[in-house]
Amino acid sequence: MTHMATRIAAAQLPITMADPVANLEAAAAAVASAAASGARLVILPELSDSGYVFTGETEARSLATPASGRTLTRWRELAAAHQLVIAGGFCELGDDGRLYNSAAVVAEGGTLAVYRKAHLWDAEKLVFTPGDAPPAVVDLPFGRVGLMICYDLEFPEWTRLAALAGADLIAAPVNWPAAPRPAHERPPEVVKAQAAAAANGVFVAVADRCRTERGVGWISGSVIVGPGGFPLAGPVLADHPALLTADCDLPRARDKTLNANNDLLADRRPELYGGLSPVQT
Amino acid sequence: MTHMATRIAAAQLPITMADPVANLEAAAAAVASAAASGARLVILPELSDSGYVFTGETEARSLATPASGRTLTRWRELAAAHQLVIAGGFCELGDDGRLYNSAAVVAEGGTLAVYRKAHLWDAEKLVFTPGDAPPAVVDLPFGRVGLMICYDLEFPEWTRLAALAGADLIAAPVNWPAAPRPAHERPPEVVKAQAAAAANGVFVAVADRCRTERGVGWISGSVIVGPGGFPLAGPVLADHPALLTADCDLPRARDKTLNANNDLLADRRPELYGGLSPVQT
Repeated sequence: MTHMATRIAAAQLPITMADPVANLEAAAAAVASAAASGARLVILPELSDSGYVFTGETEARSLATPASGRTLTRWRELAAAHQLVIAGGFCELGDDGRLYNSAAVVAEGGTLAVYRKAHLWDAEKLVFTPGDAPPAVVDLPFGRVGLMICYDLEFPEWTRLAALAGADLIAAPVNWPAAPRPAHERPPEVVKAQAAAAANGVFVAVADRCRTERGVGWISGSVIVGPGGFPLAGPVLADHPALLTADCDLPRARDKTLNANNDLLADRRPELYGGLSPVQT
Repeated sequence: MTHMATRIAAAQLPITMADPVANLEAAAAAVASAAASGARLVILPELSDSGYVFTGETEARSLATPASGRTLTRWRELAAAHQLVIAGGFCELGDDGRLYNSAAVVAEGGTLAVYRKAHLWDAEKLVFTPGDAPPAVVDLPFGRVGLMICYDLEFPEWTRLAALAGADLIAAPVNWPAAPRPAHERPPEVVKAQAAAAANGVFVAVADRCRTERGVGWISGSVIVGPGGFPLAGPVLADHPALLTADCDLPRARDKTLNANNDLLADRRPELYGGLSPVQT
């Protein structure tokens, strides 16, 4: 099936706080590199246009753009110029006037999905409104791409929902803050990404960032994981820009068979899982 | 809080197929070693009395005992003699005449819980009836112990249910069959155990087995993981007997706070998780 593989790229980028013009240029350079490598899908980090460590809601609002605005317009131009698809995070000003930590899938024809982060991390709760829609899943010519953002990926319910909705690959723009860990251990965020891939038989591609921002450092853990749970590229785990690529036969993820008697999703016992969500009446 | 820590032991054992007397003796020796090390809870592998690679239902039936039978009676004697609690797997003949791949928590006062594996692996489906109850959670003086078996642990729904039911530690008797993996990578089963611990803020203690049985080899991946997702002992990943121990302050797992704004379980969005289980009517 090698002939069906699609090159996927995850761009680990430095982001300049509060300088969207510079950030869009950096993203454009990364997209060009990904295209040169033959990638058909490139993933950019969370809030890749604005930066992350806002002084507060006012600053975030000054950097936010609507889905029809500067950031996704530029991505559309890039997608058209390079004949690929971009999945990345941006600071969204909603039509309702609220701010969302969002991600979009953008192709030459336009924006295919906008997803709003449903599980907000720390001070994001003071700035953003959480999304209330399930993970986006976009049907592309080379496979079905699910979209979620950073802390979302740490909720096994969320990755499972994406898999049940048919995602072959989960694309995750992230800004993973650094935290202490034992020597020779991967960060739990990376371990959870691997487990999400293995538990659901999907590819997972994470684009993290690098370079300290207003005193916050990052894991810089960009990684592309195969449906068996093993990394295909990365994790980088080093504070520098990186462009990861891996050749992924995305529709292969639709076969959840493990052996003659087991299937990752069919083996679920949903009739016993009622305690995970409120009883519907 | 070090003074509150409880020593937990996971016994990686060879098991002799179809020789329950020998297996109960091996378990007794492991329990004695665990007690000598100061453990108050010792975990034994899945199907620790019977062996795993049955020729079929007839052989499994010939090795099965009721919860009132030989295996749990012996464990109760051991628990009393050593003043500790045993959580291990056994081949159960149900009151209904069916066979179950079960685990029990046994103390000097008797059997505190019998749990029947709900997610069956491969040829187990030809022998055992799947359980239809959620993971057992037993309230012990030193903390609350959840119980599940092998493949169960790979369903994030199941580990989440145990955590939501209040488990501080998930005890998992397993028989993890060996499979190829890239050099320097942990088996996905271990990665999923780590992710389950980190995603739920619980301890996870896995007792695997060693020594090839009827041509089947094992990961021998016994491990005790802390609520941050990092191993406290193991994974062994070597085909020999081992007694892992770790000092675990189990009630510490009840604090799910990550920072001023985040809590592992409170951050869930159950109102959005309806797709994980059938709509209740």
